[in-house]
Amino acid sequence: MSAQAVLIDGRPGESVSVFERGLHYGDGLFETLACRGGRARLLGRHLARLEHGCARLGIRPPEPTILRAEIEWLAAGPEAAVVKLLLLRGCSPARGYDPAAAGPPTRVVLRYPWPPAPLLTGTGVRVRLGRLRLAESPSLAGLKHCNRLEQVLARAEWQDPTIAEALLFTQGGELVGGTASNVFLVQGGRLLTPQLERCGVAGVMRATVLELAQAAGIPCAVLPLRAAALDAAEEIFLTSALLGIRPVSQLEERSLPHGPVTGALSARLSTYLEGADGR
Amino acid sequence: MSAQAVLIDGRPGESVSVFERGLHYGDGLFETLACRGGRARLLGRHLARLEHGCARLGIRPPEPTILRAEIEWLAAGPEAAVVKLLLLRGCSPARGYDPAAAGPPTRVVLRYPWPPAPLLTGTGVRVRLGRLRLAESPSLAGLKHCNRLEQVLARAEWQDPTIAEALLFTQGGELVGGTASNVFLVQGGRLLTPQLERCGVAGVMRATVLELAQAAGIPCAVLPLRAAALDAAEEIFLTSALLGIRPVSQLEERSLPHGPVTGALSARLSTYLEGADGR
Repeated sequence: MSAQAVLIDGRPGESVSVFERGLHYGDGLFETLACRGGRARLLGRHLARLEHGCARLGIRPPEPTILRAEIEWLAAGPEAAVVKLLLLRGCSPARGYDPAAAGPPTRVVLRYPWPPAPLLTGTGVRVRLGRLRLAESPSLAGLKHCNRLEQVLARAEWQDPTIAEALLFTQGGELVGGTASNVFLVQGGRLLTPQLERCGVAGVMRATVLELAQAAGIPCAVLPLRAAALDAAEEIFLTSALLGIRPVSQLEERSLPHGPVTGALSARLSTYLEGADGR
Repeated sequence: MSAQAVLIDGRPGESVSVFERGLHYGDGLFETLACRGGRARLLGRHLARLEHGCARLGIRPPEPTILRAEIEWLAAGPEAAVVKLLLLRGCSPARGYDPAAAGPPTRVVLRYPWPPAPLLTGTGVRVRLGRLRLAESPSLAGLKHCNRLEQVLARAEWQDPTIAEALLFTQGGELVGGTASNVFLVQGGRLLTPQLERCGVAGVMRATVLELAQAAGIPCAVLPLRAAALDAAEEIFLTSALLGIRPVSQLEERSLPHGPVTGALSARLSTYLEGADGR
């Protein structure tokens, strides 16, 4: 599955400068968008998160109308697709970490075919517990930045294609989420998800699901969670921009049912994503 | 100051594929070498660290004779230079963190003019204490990997060109080193430097200085250090492949002398680097 099209700073291209700081330091941000029926889902939320990330990292944000047009251009067409945006800090002809002398940011927008990974096939997924413990970094927490070696190493822990995802914990033992997804637990009718002030990515689908749950009158809590919370959970599901809501049917050796809260939220999410709000 | 020459997988080039995982995830390693009189200093140590990093990250190591030849090619010539090697995991045409499907690693070797930064001019340097707290990540600690957003943000904390470096601490308050250097303290005639099991880069110059100090009969300790150790230090110096040993003459508001231990080690290092062992 190779990418079907690439825009670099608005033009078709296949390569970036060897002086791009994204290449030297992972100095950039990204967004991954699900595209159905020619439109990029949750585009406004993705662009808002990107702008927030730019403010936190001190990267000059791109003109939103231009970026939106580029994403919509690659999202077009009847076939489902994944569009990935990389916003890199830009080129520094001189060496060194100082970002002050960097040139304008580099926009890379790539279209990939759907489905992007086995994670997206089937309904309930099988999940393991990862061994790698994530670093706690408040200065980067929440951001979808390009420093992803921990996720690469965590994903390299298993080859079994029937396992879709691994749940990861911090050094201190707090639950964070999957390598490429957020996690929700249902316990006593309450919806729980880890707080991400010190680690993890604040997913756009996570925020959407929290809003929909609140609108549905489901009690929600964003809080520190440890491994014991997984044992106590009646339902567990993953979220991501690509997955939407994906029930966990097996966590290590334990089987989990497709529960009522997950089902109700999935139905609400489908309606939301089909409507104008989901754009 | 732009690069004078670039080799990509052994050929002159200026760009890398947009599918390179180094660009998407910072999925790679680097080395920065000081080149004087046409030779790359401490080349054997740099190559050994790179190989160790490849083993830790599961990146296929390049053929050492080829890599050595490429670095020596760019190091050649009478003028001092900096040669930077980027070893990136390679291209993944499919999306996702899983490194299993990555193509062969990409070697990028760049030559930059000397001096590389104001840090390298003068003798004693002025240093500040950084605000950003580094994440503790045992799975990545010690490696010179390409996930460097924390260093970028820490370096962005100051613009004053008379400040050469910032000393950084972990979330837990342990001293780590500079944004691009290791740090040594002299206290009661003993040489102290932070242990790097949970955070930081194990510099080749740091290892060299520790060996030279032991050979000189200077008591050395690699141990956890906190801010109070800086207050108690009689001498402080930074090390890096480019800096060698660089005394800290001012730490925040405190002036520090050019002390005898730093002086003795600097003299031994010069001799070492001029000899065959320093190659």
